[in-house]
Amino acid sequence: MRPSTALPTRFLSAHAVCELVRREGLDRTLAGIAQCIEEDFQRWPAFDKSARVASHSHDGVIELMPISDARRYSFKYVNGHPRNTTRGLPTVMAFGVLADVATGAPELVSELTLTTALRTAATSIVAARRLARPDSRVMAVIGNGAQSEFQVLAFYHLLGIDTLHLFDVDPGATAKLVRNLAGHHLNIVICASAAEAVLGADIVTTLTADKTRATILHADMLAPGMHLNAVGGDCPGKTELATDVLRRSRVFVEYEPQTRIEGDLQQMPADFPVTELWRVLTGQAPGRVHPAEITLFDSVGFALEDFSALRFLQEAARRHGLGEPLDLIPQLPDPKNLFAALGEAAGPADCSTPAAPQPATRHAA
Amino acid sequence: MRPSTALPTRFLSAHAVCELVRREGLDRTLAGIAQCIEEDFQRWPAFDKSARVASHSHDGVIELMPISDARRYSFKYVNGHPRNTTRGLPTVMAFGVLADVATGAPELVSELTLTTALRTAATSIVAARRLARPDSRVMAVIGNGAQSEFQVLAFYHLLGIDTLHLFDVDPGATAKLVRNLAGHHLNIVICASAAEAVLGADIVTTLTADKTRATILHADMLAPGMHLNAVGGDCPGKTELATDVLRRSRVFVEYEPQTRIEGDLQQMPADFPVTELWRVLTGQAPGRVHPAEITLFDSVGFALEDFSALRFLQEAARRHGLGEPLDLIPQLPDPKNLFAALGEAAGPADCSTPAAPQPATRHAA
Repeated sequence: MRPSTALPTRFLSAHAVCELVRREGLDRTLAGIAQCIEEDFQRWPAFDKSARVASHSHDGVIELMPISDARRYSFKYVNGHPRNTTRGLPTVMAFGVLADVATGAPELVSELTLTTALRTAATSIVAARRLARPDSRVMAVIGNGAQSEFQVLAFYHLLGIDTLHLFDVDPGATAKLVRNLAGHHLNIVICASAAEAVLGADIVTTLTADKTRATILHADMLAPGMHLNAVGGDCPGKTELATDVLRRSRVFVEYEPQTRIEGDLQQMPADFPVTELWRVLTGQAPGRVHPAEITLFDSVGFALEDFSALRFLQEAARRHGLGEPLDLIPQLPDPKNLFAALGEAAGPADCSTPAAPQPATRHAA
Repeated sequence: MRPSTALPTRFLSAHAVCELVRREGLDRTLAGIAQCIEEDFQRWPAFDKSARVASHSHDGVIELMPISDARRYSFKYVNGHPRNTTRGLPTVMAFGVLADVATGAPELVSELTLTTALRTAATSIVAARRLARPDSRVMAVIGNGAQSEFQVLAFYHLLGIDTLHLFDVDPGATAKLVRNLAGHHLNIVICASAAEAVLGADIVTTLTADKTRATILHADMLAPGMHLNAVGGDCPGKTELATDVLRRSRVFVEYEPQTRIEGDLQQMPADFPVTELWRVLTGQAPGRVHPAEITLFDSVGFALEDFSALRFLQEAARRHGLGEPLDLIPQLPDPKNLFAALGEAAGPADCSTPAAPQPATRHAA
């Protein structure tokens, strides 16, 4: 019996994903992930969905985010530890696995720290394509931390944004963002407040990181026709928007049961109306219906986006010859003989020394 | 800011775990894992426990099994696909992760296919030490598949079992088990039926693999003083024991809410009395109280056992200098600057060509 071609598992390291983005180009990577997300959201009912499994502790949270369709299973491991930067670690670290539903074999293990930032930005694009005004050119970016470059460049490359209004309570964060955007043809305005940043913006992206009930936006800061891309409010107790902002907007979400707990939506009554994004993508619900309406994408990040990103990575890695085999699952000549994998590790008798005693075997009478 | 010492993640491959068992010895590996399981079960209330998260499909199941205490978090990925052997794959494949609760950093990624077999056998030992008669020498092993060598050698090395009564519906499985036991000083009797195997046994270990409601044991096969180590009935719809066997025994379980769904216990009313093993290990409940009573360990496998096994592997791998760094999480000079990890992958402008345009930045008036 020959070992299955499903093994060994492939591994995409953090360096391999960087190299993949380099070869593919950031613009095409974001476009590719956005396309996979669109395709998968359009197959929404085909997925076995559940809310993430969270383990909360004093300093943060560790989550598992599984999802599957009839062919593929994926999960992401992701943490959120706001104080990690004081220890030299990212606040969010992630990795994920893509597996074959028919056999359970893990096909791909990949870094997802960078990829989570890419897929979050790609999801914002998928939503904004249906919800922002097509003539949007100016984006306010409130919160200029680790996610901001990914959001900015996604909207620059894929949606035609050419002007940024930046604000962060930490000017150092804004300076870092500006440095990282060097060389892109963007007009950048550094603002002294969120209100100033929002003024004149077509799209407002909120990316603040404080794990508190903050109110970055009030309804009196909004103008007709705006699209709000609210990304920072993404766990219980962490919000960015005043409730009047939600009341003033038509609200779109990824997966309603999860957003009711984790999104800015957590502040609203249980019957506050929202539309799941997949229904817009399949034409079952309208996206933006009027140039003057205010739309809000209350993004919290859903397992399906990681599934889509892993699917993109697997295909792109094959195309670019990236990744390496990972000896994660033993490859057995006879899969019914797991013990043989141990070989001589099994004990002195398996060293095949001539003196090895044979078992005293008999058949019962 | 220097990168944290928590990264890079360490990786223990399938080969590394085999090498670890070779250097440590199978007997000491099993003893070490059993000791970690005992220690952790004695700290039972310190753990954040939940039932596993299962994704069922036509051909099998894929599960995630997370658990944590205040310091460490672990999860196991494990599948169960009974028909996998026809594709050259093991029916059960697994891997797991040990992470730091304080930062969320994944410290160890390890194979757990072999380790699951080791920890299941070690758990059986932890239970049998309190539940089997101390003078037990004869063990019946019904089901001689992938798990059987691990169970046999654990009971041989750690509990003094010297005589085996083997039965499997597939004589090839028994022949494989006998071959793999070559060189160990065991008296082996190959039996023609489960009833024959049970006759005269002090301990009866059931390890059958059929995903059905089977009845390998009936109450009329039992003798006073037996300990039943029931390992094969471990998911909904998969049982091994007639209900009268449970009624005739004092029943011990790992984690009651899970065993009520997955164990042979699933056949019994919700108020059928059981004792959680940790209560025996901490002295809060008695183990075996009489040489003539029949005890039953209805083992299904619980996340804490994988946590304990990962903890053992981490420590033993350090001691033996095994394992390798895994580039799973990007190591950032500035953890607030995730985008910088992409380096030149970020776009043409970051190639630092002299002609790269600078962003048109201004401060809002």
